[in-house]
Order: sequence, then structure tokens, then C-alpha cells
Amino acid sequence: MKGVILAAGKGSRISMRGKPKPLIPFLGLPLIERNIANLVSCGIRDFIVVVGYRADEVKSYVESLAEKYGINIQVIVNNEWDKENGWSVLKAEGQVQEPFVLIMSDHVYESEILESFLHRVERQPDGVILAVDYKTKAPGHIDLDDVTKVFTEDGKIKNIGKDIDKYNGFDTGLFFCSPVIFEAIRESSREGDTSLSGGIRQLAKEGKAQAFDIGDGIWYDVDTEEMFKKAEKYFLKKYNEPKQKINLDGPISRLLNRKISLLISRRLVYSEVTPMQVSVFSFILSVLAGLVFFLKGYVPLLLGGILAQISSVIDGVDGEIARMKNMRSEFGGWFDSVLDRYSDAFVLFGLAYHSTFYHNSFMCWLAGFLAIIGSFVNSYSADKYDGYLKKRLREGKKRVYFRVGRDLRVFIVFLGALANFPFTTLAALAALTNVENVRRIVVVMKGGKV
Amino acid sequence: MKGVILAAGKGSRISMRGKPKPLIPFLGLPLIERNIANLVSCGIRDFIVVVGYRADEVKSYVESLAEKYGINIQVIVNNEWDKENGWSVLKAEGQVQEPFVLIMSDHVYESEILESFLHRVERQPDGVILAVDYKTKAPGHIDLDDVTKVFTEDGKIKNIGKDIDKYNGFDTGLFFCSPVIFEAIRESSREGDTSLSGGIRQLAKEGKAQAFDIGDGIWYDVDTEEMFKKAEKYFLKKYNEPKQKINLDGPISRLLNRKISLLISRRLVYSEVTPMQVSVFSFILSVLAGLVFFLKGYVPLLLGGILAQISSVIDGVDGEIARMKNMRSEFGGWFDSVLDRYSDAFVLFGLAYHSTFYHNSFMCWLAGFLAIIGSFVNSYSADKYDGYLKKRLREGKKRVYFRVGRDLRVFIVFLGALANFPFTTLAALAALTNVENVRRIVVVMKGGKV
Repeated sequence: MKGVILAAGKGSRISMRGKPKPLIPFLGLPLIERNIANLVSCGIRDFIVVVGYRADEVKSYVESLAEKYGINIQVIVNNEWDKENGWSVLKAEGQVQEPFVLIMSDHVYESEILESFLHRVERQPDGVILAVDYKTKAPGHIDLDDVTKVFTEDGKIKNIGKDIDKYNGFDTGLFFCSPVIFEAIRESSREGDTSLSGGIRQLAKEGKAQAFDIGDGIWYDVDTEEMFKKAEKYFLKKYNEPKQKINLDGPISRLLNRKISLLISRRLVYSEVTPMQVSVFSFILSVLAGLVFFLKGYVPLLLGGILAQISSVIDGVDGEIARMKNMRSEFGGWFDSVLDRYSDAFVLFGLAYHSTFYHNSFMCWLAGFLAIIGSFVNSYSADKYDGYLKKRLREGKKRVYFRVGRDLRVFIVFLGALANFPFTTLAALAALTNVENVRRIVVVMKGGKV
Repeated sequence: MKGVILAAGKGSRISMRGKPKPLIPFLGLPLIERNIANLVSCGIRDFIVVVGYRADEVKSYVESLAEKYGINIQVIVNNEWDKENGWSVLKAEGQVQEPFVLIMSDHVYESEILESFLHRVERQPDGVILAVDYKTKAPGHIDLDDVTKVFTEDGKIKNIGKDIDKYNGFDTGLFFCSPVIFEAIRESSREGDTSLSGGIRQLAKEGKAQAFDIGDGIWYDVDTEEMFKKAEKYFLKKYNEPKQKINLDGPISRLLNRKISLLISRRLVYSEVTPMQVSVFSFILSVLAGLVFFLKGYVPLLLGGILAQISSVIDGVDGEIARMKNMRSEFGGWFDSVLDRYSDAFVLFGLAYHSTFYHNSFMCWLAGFLAIIGSFVNSYSADKYDGYLKKRLREGKKRVYFRVGRDLRVFIVFLGALANFPFTTLAALAALTNVENVRRIVVVMKGGKV
């Protein structure tokens, strides 16, 4: 199935960002690219993009996506982009003989909306279907003055338009169309309305326009700065909340680190900085922390603790940016976690050295060694253990879940440095991490085979 | 589909082991249990077992398997167990209305034979099919005096019997039968032959007996001590060679450790020792090695090195026993690998302490620390890295494969202790493991996303 994307309009209400609307980066990814990436995830490989306003810029960017995503993209220029959007749809007519998905380049959808919509239309590809948002009672994500309303009955569209009085849903700009749509738009055009809505209205009269309920899915038409900011805030949270409602972030991560890292990510996502660069930067901060610990005195100790904690916060940013920019890779996650292990070790070795200024050195090395091995096995055993816990949480057998992870370990280093107790901190970490490892083994053993 | 297992015979030629033949442990698992476990893996959940000789013993053991494997087992007693085996088949008649799989309890099959056979019969469940071994030119796994021969043409059985002159294959004792087999055996019985072969011969006459080619699959009828030993040797190797012909054992493991551990496992598999007990024992040896290193002098150093190497060899035994006894579990593997990380750390920490007897202590701790973290990250990065390499090996993009793993690291400790160079050993390990970690990152990064 082909995907047709309308990207011809000027978007004058948001043009202050200096780019044609489809190319405005939303959380680091141009609006049109985000939609294409989402459709690619749903299995669409062939795209037709209708451009118009600043056609050359949009065209050249869109064409560059073909290689990036390994897809086919055909760009069609609509010189009448300042007219109604039905003209853009008609431009695609020669290129589609089969039913296709039609989407607005400047809308942002939760990927679940696209997935469920495509799942639906693939099972029963017939006629014209519009994805309808029935959440008219909680339209916080909707610009009521600008949105196209629809009135449906028994899953059929009865009326559609920006100014209809009686409506029970909103047009989300996501359509499944068989080629009958072209004739319908022409029919409507003869009556003076060459909009896509006009075409749908024609089909509605004949009982040929169906509605698909997007349920509680959220989407935004980011047509104004205000809606853009709202959408940004919503998706920033959305992209970084755990899937399946099971949060394996540790307590410090949830209460502190994640909040700060999201603030950083929100800004950094619009820069050229890559997730891998962030991973390396966080690693360097930890190495510095370890080195600063080699100096005697409270100031270096405190400074090292602060550096370690900053490194821990920034350690969340790489993943956040990767998720928002659709740049997640298995290698990136692996690389980050390998660096994290070295970071942990350098910080703890530095702390062990620092402790020898004040205590019996063998005891310091022993505590440092036990803290390192404990922390390491903490991480090493985490994959399997987390998998086990997720299963338990999903089965509802366990509700409360306390996780000794990197966020907590580094925070303890920070607190210990602040309190000027280097050796006690090491000893506490050695005890905490190794007891936790034994506890994990016991829990998993008791719970039966993982 | 039900599985019918013939377990009534006396097996007089191998009875010296003191147990009824189906209960003779083969690599730690009674013959009949191994067959049941293999069929369970292929999806069979309902079994009918025909017992006879020492019926009570066999019955009570077989019934205990129902709970262990979560399956249904019905035991039928054939008091005429000293007659031909067709009588045992006939005893099952009342219990099977549908086609079923029929198997001899005292044969040992490579699981691939059962898998491909069941895959075949599930696609086209029709008539009577015998799994035939066509390897008549290399019958090292066959007792030619005792085996039942078959002659087939175009996939149809033409003749079958122990003493036929013209044959091109062997009866493997694995059948797929529709209930017509019962009438066929009775028919044959009227002519004086109440064996299963007799029934097949009847069906062959009518063109109703098909042959399934087991290809290069290996099976044994362990009817004599000699065949039992042969089979044991073959499967000992088989169970412990890597799947998919890709061996990720390190060089020391391949050339030394695996050879010794298999000798140990071959004996230990017949004892009550569990894989987890072996894991713990190996761990204790490593802890002892670490402790012995705390004593000054060459003798403790050497002793520690030897203990560490023995621990490394025994570390292979748990997995081997688990595979042979069908006791593999995700928890077991996880538990073993967590203990291995502690083992590594204790040995290296001990070695670092030992080095301080002779060298600047900070340098010793630093080398020890780097060796520990390097070894850790070696193991930590191994899963992903191995997955990547397996892919490359499968694609044929890479042939030679050198793996820095635990086997090599411990062996270096052993050699270093033998040569009385504790500090140099640590420094070498620190360099080797950390360079290897960087190399892995570079290799994976170059090879594209994993």
C-alpha cells in the first residue's frame, strides 16, 4: 500500500521558524520525516509526497529520506499550493491505482494511532475511511477554531466541515482512500469546494465514507506556536515514559535524574549532537570524577561527587534523544552500557584511592574492590532479573518494586562525597550492591525458573 | 497426536546393569525418559506406554514423569511381554482412535530425527510411515546381526525383516501409524508372525507402508553393552558440541578444558550431583584460589593458579551435565554466569594482593583494578558481541575467530603463577582484556549496527 503525504501548504501561522512547515523540526525530527518514519514502521515502503510552497527545499529534503529509510519516494509539485488542499490530492491521481493511505505532513500522531488504523484498513481495505477523534469532551490537544469537525452515525460519516454545528468528532487528517476519492473531489469542485473535506462530504452523501475511532490516541495539528509547544510537551513525556506502563527506572532516576535530563534533552534534541556523543561526554565526566578523587581534601572529593552525579544525569540524555529522533540502535544501547561499566569502575577506584588518604589502605582497596564487583554484578545480573520482574509485574504478582541500579549507586557516591565520608561510602556501596545481588539470586530462585 | 512407547521387553542382552531396560540411565537419563523428553520437545503431550517385564518398576517410574514434564501418561501392562512385540502394539489398540507416533523405549535418537520425522508426518498424516536409515554403507552405529532391515522403492516399503537378503535401509524403530496397523498385525499373526515388522510387511504388500529418510541422523539400539558404550560416546560429544556448527568456545576451552570436563561429566552424569552444585563447587575453588594468593611465596602462588585453572575446567561441567540430563534452565545459566563474575574478581583481587608483596602496592592495585574491570566488561559485552559474530560467521563473512574469554584469562593466571610473575600477569591481563574491549567496540561499530 502506498502512502500519500500532503506537504504543499504554507502554514503561515507557524512560519516564523524560518522553514517550510513540513521541515520544521519537532523534537529534532522534521514533521514530515516523523510521519514517514512512523509509516515505515507500519510497513509502508512507497510514498508519494505532494509539495508546493518552497517546493525545491521540501523536495530535496524529502528525497534524501529515500536512502535513509530504504524506501521509495516520489515527489509531485503542486504549483497551486495556495488553493484548497483537494488540488494537492488530485495531483497524486496519476500515481495511485490502488487504495492508499493519505496523511497530512504537518500533523503529529502517536504511533499507536497509525498502527491501529493501518491494522484496521489492512484487514478490510474498502471504500474511504477517516480516522476520527471522538474525544470532543476533552479537546485539550485540539485547536477548536481550526479543526475540521465530523458528524458520524453507526461508523458512517454523515457530515464534515470546519463550521458544522452538529458534530461528534474531529477529522485527524489520516485517511484510507480508494481511488474513488478523486472523482468525489472533482464532483465537489463542480459545486465550488475543491477541498479534501468536500470530497469526503460527497462520498458521505452516498454512504461511502466510514469512520475509524482512534480511541484515546493523541494527535496534534501543530498549526500554531501554541499547539506546537503543547505537542512538544506531550510527546517529550510520551517518548520517554516506559512502554507497557512498567517503569524500571530506579528511584533516583524517577525523582531526580529523569526530570533534569528531559529538560536537557528537550533543548539538545534540536542540535546536531548525537546520542553517541552524549554517551562519550557522560563517560568523560565520570573519568574526570575518578581523577579528581586522586587529590587530597574535601574540595576535590566534593567536586568528584558532583561530577559523578552530573554524569549520571547526562547518562539518561543519550537514550532520550535517540528515542525522540528515531535514532535508537542496538549498538548505541550496548556502547552506552559498556561505557557505563567503565564509568562506574573509574569513579569507585578513584574513591578507593581517596579513602587511602585517611584509612588503612588495604581496607580501602578491599572496600573499593567489593563495591566495584558488587556494582558490576548488579548491572550484569540486571537484564535477566529485570526480565523476570517485568513478568511478575505484568502478572500482577508484585506491585512495589525497588531497584538498586546505577542511579542509586552514583547518588550514594554523591551524598558520601558531600558528607565527606569516602570510606564509609565505599563500604556502604560494597554492602548494598552485594547484598542486592544475593537477594536477586534468592528472589529468582524462589520464583521458579525465569 | 499421541505417542505410543513400547517398553515391555526384557532386554536380556544388557540386563547386567540391574534395571529393567527402559530405566537404564543413558548419560544420566533413563532411556525411556530421554525419548519422552525429546517427544515432549516436539509437542507430543499424551503418551501411552506399554510395559511388561518388571512392569511395576517401569510403571511407577514412567508415571512419575507425568508431573515432571506436565504431560498425560497412560501405562498399559502387557503380561505377554516375552512374546513378539506386535502383542504390545495390540495392547494399545483400545486407547488410540487417531493416528499416532510409535517408538521403541530402548532406542536413542538424535532429537533432529524426531523433529524432522514429526514435522513430516504432521504435514501429511496418512497411512503408516517408518523412519528408515539408508546409511547401509557406514553402519558403525548399527548392530548388523540384530537390526531389522528394510527394502524400499520410490519411498515405499517393499520388504522388512531381520533376515532379508536384499535391503537398502534399516528400521529405526520410529513409526507413524494410523489404526490400520492393528488389523495388519492380526493379519500377520494369523500367518504366524505377531511382530510389528509382520504388520508392516502386510501393509507393504498393499502398498500402504511408506518410508521416511532420516538422512544423516544417528540413532542407536542400545541392546548390548558394546552398542551402549558406542552410543554414550557419540552422544557425549553430540550434546556438548555447539549447535549450528559455530563454536564460540575459546581456544583454551577447545584444546584443553572441554576435553577434561567431558571426561568428568561422563562420570558425574550418572551421579545425583546437580549442575547447580557443580557451579557452586567451581565458585568455591576460585574463592580458595583467591585466598591462597594472600599467602606469600611461590608455593601459595602456584597452588592458587592451579586451583583457578581447575575451577575453570569444572566450570564447563555444569552446563554439560545439564544438557545431557535435560536439566538446562535459564536460571541455571544465569546463576552460573553471576558466580563466574565473582570467581574472576576473587582470583584477580587475590593476585593483586599477592603482587604487593614484591612491588609498589599502588601499581599492583591499579593493575588488579584494570584487570578486573577489563575482565568484567569482557563478559558484559560478550552476549551482544557473540551474537554479532555468530551472524557474521553464519553469513560466511568471517572464518577465523579468536575469542578472549574466561578460559583464556584464567589460563593466563595459571601460567603466570607457574612462572612466578604475579604482577606481570595482572598487567598483561589488564592490557589484554581492555584492548579486547576496545577492539570489540571498533569491530561492531565498523560492521554497522548490530
